[in-house]
Amino acid sequence: MPDLILSLDAMGGDNGPDAVIPGIDLAIKDGLNAKFLIFGIAERVEPLLAKYPKVKECSEFIAVTEIVTAQDRASSALRKKGTSMYMAIQAVKDGQAHGVVSSGNTGALMATARLILRTLPGVDRPFIASMMPTIKGRSVVLDMGANITCDADAMIQMAVLGSIFGQIGLGNDKPTVGILNVGSEDQKGHDYIRQAASILSDISFPGQYYGFIEGDDIGKGTTDVVVTDGFTGNVALKTAEGIARMSSHYMREAFTKTIWSKLGYLLASRSIKHIRAKLDARLYNGGLFLGLQGVCIKSHGGSDAVGFSRALLVAAQMVREDYTGRVAEAMKNVPHIENGSTEAA
Amino acid sequence: MPDLILSLDAMGGDNGPDAVIPGIDLAIKDGLNAKFLIFGIAERVEPLLAKYPKVKECSEFIAVTEIVTAQDRASSALRKKGTSMYMAIQAVKDGQAHGVVSSGNTGALMATARLILRTLPGVDRPFIASMMPTIKGRSVVLDMGANITCDADAMIQMAVLGSIFGQIGLGNDKPTVGILNVGSEDQKGHDYIRQAASILSDISFPGQYYGFIEGDDIGKGTTDVVVTDGFTGNVALKTAEGIARMSSHYMREAFTKTIWSKLGYLLASRSIKHIRAKLDARLYNGGLFLGLQGVCIKSHGGSDAVGFSRALLVAAQMVREDYTGRVAEAMKNVPHIENGSTEAA
Repeated sequence: MPDLILSLDAMGGDNGPDAVIPGIDLAIKDGLNAKFLIFGIAERVEPLLAKYPKVKECSEFIAVTEIVTAQDRASSALRKKGTSMYMAIQAVKDGQAHGVVSSGNTGALMATARLILRTLPGVDRPFIASMMPTIKGRSVVLDMGANITCDADAMIQMAVLGSIFGQIGLGNDKPTVGILNVGSEDQKGHDYIRQAASILSDISFPGQYYGFIEGDDIGKGTTDVVVTDGFTGNVALKTAEGIARMSSHYMREAFTKTIWSKLGYLLASRSIKHIRAKLDARLYNGGLFLGLQGVCIKSHGGSDAVGFSRALLVAAQMVREDYTGRVAEAMKNVPHIENGSTEAA
Repeated sequence: MPDLILSLDAMGGDNGPDAVIPGIDLAIKDGLNAKFLIFGIAERVEPLLAKYPKVKECSEFIAVTEIVTAQDRASSALRKKGTSMYMAIQAVKDGQAHGVVSSGNTGALMATARLILRTLPGVDRPFIASMMPTIKGRSVVLDMGANITCDADAMIQMAVLGSIFGQIGLGNDKPTVGILNVGSEDQKGHDYIRQAASILSDISFPGQYYGFIEGDDIGKGTTDVVVTDGFTGNVALKTAEGIARMSSHYMREAFTKTIWSKLGYLLASRSIKHIRAKLDARLYNGGLFLGLQGVCIKSHGGSDAVGFSRALLVAAQMVREDYTGRVAEAMKNVPHIENGSTEAA
């Protein structure tokens, strides 16, 4: 098997192969050296491969006849073994690829990836992580909605999974980890949060436990990794997106208020666009499925070629830096709590 | 008793009487016609009253010797019956004032207000609401942290409490109410959320049930009232504050990037400052304690005179428009769920 093989669901998201094939082309231009297994509908994918010969050269196309739609329920997607999504994930399980990328239906992708790839030893269930922009740069935030309720074990596992992704994605040897809470004092928050905090303060893991943080610490970038349950994480991420959009809206309003502000905008527009592009790209880079026996990236459903190429680069980096192996190793030292008692995993 | 009497804790917040006394002065200038009972330490308050004769004219000063500090635990604040906070709340209970405003320690204020004033019939516990800026204007969001876990009854009570505040604060006869969730489909989210949603769809209350909303709907202003548990609400509010600050940070960065953008800023600065002031004031107007037998407003701990004067105007409006009486009336028609069965309150 070559150095790096990525398995791709070409039919997911709003743009399907129109984002995936040009996205591979962009990633190759950005220096990605890999082989691609492309799963998709022949009449959609083949004309694009003809148009992008560089992509065709390093790809193997596998024609499918079924796809998972945005409306499909996870439970029905699981049963359709001939879809581009199912087969792309299966290729990782079968050892034909090192990682999989899809822009498809998040619920279906999570359920199918979990069924086929299974979780790593010591990890009870997979989580979805995302990168969020901060004043200091970027932070890894998880869970973004895979598990709407969590227990202390889940919080501890997320701290490990997020830290190792932080090492790779942020290039930081010992990322700081904060648990999202309604105050920084020890006695605040749900019981399971306090229990997880007390264990993380004691054990050794690839990150460095910082303590409780609050919602505004996300934007401040107080910690490299932010751990929270999937309900809170999903609401926080989407609230952040909404407020970022609201801020842009009001800035636009300010710039169209007077003739002077319009002229001011013209002069500053290059700088403003530069900043806006930086923030947007960071906010919408999809989700990392962490905790599975294999690398699986959910590219944003609305991804264009640029977005998809970024997802490919992240997948490649996670494979090359052995994300999965490092998690399996770290989990050996992490205790598993059952009914309040602590035992080694 | 005159038309409107407000009882004020002059010793709360970072600025204490230095915000409270000039804040009353500003509110009077803005047309507030009321009598004020001011509870505070004589050597701090009296020199200020001498400086603001218009305030002195319509106030009664009651000297205290004890105060609640930012570090005090709620449980210890409850026992100090001679503090400015305790006595200001007691004045409402005793019928000497119609409402109370304090910038003091939120936990202490909530615990003391709940102990002294008690909740309205049909309301199990008080909630904290806040106004948040949106693209459309403003929305009422609750609970902001008084109850980190909630049940279906709490969600329904918040829908009623928030709607009536929406009628008063937003001037909207039938405010729309959304429940914050991780998706808009019926089967999403925690059980108690789905149960509350199903009841709110059936009953008649002062608002209009819209359905599930997601985090980005806060910034969009999709509904007038946003209902969520205190953990999620606290994280969402603080995340919003953090992201708003991050956006400002990056805009500042954009404007100092080149000589052209600096010049652009100079030209647009009036318009930008105007918008920024609008957003800031709305984000930081403190919390409304809803569900108590009396109007109680928590002004932001960092409030200056302007912030405190706004809190006074909100309290006055809630008293004049009989917030408390309207809630008591509306709660008569709201069912109370116990162990899954529904019964009239």
